[in-house]
Amino acid sequence: MTDQKKPLRFGSVSRTNGTEGYEAYKKYHSAPFAGVNEMIKACNLQNYSIYYYDGLLFSYYEYTGDDYDADMAKMAADPTTQKWWAAVVPQMKPFADDGPWVDMEQIYHLD
Amino acid sequence: MTDQKKPLRFGSVSRTNGTEGYEAYKKYHSAPFAGVNEMIKACNLQNYSIYYYDGLLFSYYEYTGDDYDADMAKMAADPTTQKWWAAVVPQMKPFADDGPWVDMEQIYHLD
Repeated sequence: MTDQKKPLRFGSVSRTNGTEGYEAYKKYHSAPFAGVNEMIKACNLQNYSIYYYDGLLFSYYEYTGDDYDADMAKMAADPTTQKWWAAVVPQMKPFADDGPWVDMEQIYHLD
Repeated sequence: MTDQKKPLRFGSVSRTNGTEGYEAYKKYHSAPFAGVNEMIKACNLQNYSIYYYDGLLFSYYEYTGDDYDADMAKMAADPTTQKWWAAVVPQMKPFADDGPWVDMEQIYHLD
């Protein structure tokens, strides 16, 4: 990734699991478990927003580090993050089988 | 909006009008008409990205000005922007009748 401009930007899409899933997902994200946000920052993510409309979830964040895969592995190995994912992922109805979020294609950007 | 923290962040969702709509939308956004990006900046928008997945379009941008409605009206009155919208909006299949994009609810943010 060394030839790409920082920050790297990621847009991802998912869905909530019905009305109950939406309400639970929103409630969890209004007050994440202690340590969750700190680990996100420690993994070099910033300006992270999640949006909802009619069952759809969209996430946008920026990555400022030098090794995205290593930082994502670090996050996945964190026990607090694992506990967090165990709570929030069941509230989702992903588009794909290999994870709760699907990467989208960036088709426009203006700084 | 004076009691809100800058920048204001907006997430919006739309759809492309079939495969042809996606291809045309993407091609237009790879090289916007001269003046389109400049007008966006003149209306105090920044860090503007559009993402695509399986017929879904998601946009994220930040607003740094003091009067969002006035700046959006300024953009809508710009002849170049009108020409641009006349080209790109037919490539879309919006979720609502009152415009090509629907505002999403922000349910999480971490600086």
